[in-house]
Amino acid sequence: MSGKLFIIGLGPGDAAMLTPQAANALAQATDLVGYGPYVVRAPERVGQIRHISDNREELDRARHALEMAAAGRVVAVLSAGDAGVFGMASAVFEAIDKGEPAWRGLEVEVVAGVSAMFAAAARVGAFLGHDFCAISLSDNLKPWALVLQRLRVAAEAGFAMALYNPHSGARPWQLNAAFEVLREILPPATPVVFATAVSRADERVYITTLAEAESSRADMRTLVLVGTAETKLVERPGREPWVYAPRSVA
Amino acid sequence: MSGKLFIIGLGPGDAAMLTPQAANALAQATDLVGYGPYVVRAPERVGQIRHISDNREELDRARHALEMAAAGRVVAVLSAGDAGVFGMASAVFEAIDKGEPAWRGLEVEVVAGVSAMFAAAARVGAFLGHDFCAISLSDNLKPWALVLQRLRVAAEAGFAMALYNPHSGARPWQLNAAFEVLREILPPATPVVFATAVSRADERVYITTLAEAESSRADMRTLVLVGTAETKLVERPGREPWVYAPRSVA
Repeated sequence: MSGKLFIIGLGPGDAAMLTPQAANALAQATDLVGYGPYVVRAPERVGQIRHISDNREELDRARHALEMAAAGRVVAVLSAGDAGVFGMASAVFEAIDKGEPAWRGLEVEVVAGVSAMFAAAARVGAFLGHDFCAISLSDNLKPWALVLQRLRVAAEAGFAMALYNPHSGARPWQLNAAFEVLREILPPATPVVFATAVSRADERVYITTLAEAESSRADMRTLVLVGTAETKLVERPGREPWVYAPRSVA
Repeated sequence: MSGKLFIIGLGPGDAAMLTPQAANALAQATDLVGYGPYVVRAPERVGQIRHISDNREELDRARHALEMAAAGRVVAVLSAGDAGVFGMASAVFEAIDKGEPAWRGLEVEVVAGVSAMFAAAARVGAFLGHDFCAISLSDNLKPWALVLQRLRVAAEAGFAMALYNPHSGARPWQLNAAFEVLREILPPATPVVFATAVSRADERVYITTLAEAESSRADMRTLVLVGTAETKLVERPGREPWVYAPRSVA
């Protein structure tokens, strides 16, 4: 029996944003592997086994999935958004790289999904419509000084930003420290968006400015978008403004 | 009659990567607006009108769509990938910003899609699995000096990159000039991927190094991914290697 490993991006949450390709891969799997809140999004199937793990054990989870695929199972490793964007895909290939030589012979398919940052940008208009970057604020796996350096150069060079992992229970000061660094470079009126649980029932989207941005708006399910000096607001009567990145830079 | 404007990301090409949400929006539209090769991807529907335009007339196309929505039509503006990533979303909001005040009262919904850069990254493994940026090489709407500056700072700061619009018929020297700048900063062995028409019948994915990268590999449907000094290859027996961004940076 030959196993297979799917690495699937489930999209931001709404089932209508799960691609048919991802749904088809989920239907083929004998085993689902992932963080609990993601695994429960998959439709229940008779005989399919769910392996739920803590969100921090990425490499262990990846190895477990690879062992099962090597034993002939059809395993789906699940991430929210796109699995290649601060999701499980890197962990799986790192586990292969450092693991059993036989794992290099496995069939592995990464199934791309709708990224949470683009769902967030779409909610407010076209926030990431020109050059942009994505930065994880977590310093679990890189030095905090490097996070700050990347924020600094991205702001100076005019990239809009999507900030992942903005909220850390262990280091709640980090997001405000990031805003402080950005305030040294970007205008006070630079638009900032806190996008929480986009496309889910408890979605919250809050548009503010860099001057007013405050970390208490973010929780573990929040993405923070930071604009540039070029980012524009389109005011609307009685509604939140649209926010977009102009296509041209003078 | 009240009109509506959808701005829809169709995904990279494979119909199995079109979300149910996007399919539903396409089904509601009375009018489809977009560049020909994108519009023909929508399923044919009796009574639905297709307005096909040249790829360069983004702002004219946006205004036309807005006029129809203001007249009560349900209009879908189509982009490949995600419409918010160098797609039509920015053009539509710019047209609103500079256009008729009444357009600010319109119902506008941006329907996020699977981005071509994540489909490309997924094909080779987890190329964009850590901090990354997206840069358009087109100098139609920004100075070429700014393009080069952004390439330089992104490479120096350790961002992986997705390069959009790498091929210009008018300025075929640009992509090689970009590689020259990157070679001054990144190691010769830095992985580079030319991903053309990903998920379509004529998909071509070519993995090389920055030292060997050559613009003739790119055409108008190509995305170029450039790694960092940290990007790793996982060699496989008899097959192309996987390429991934490690989750940790020392």
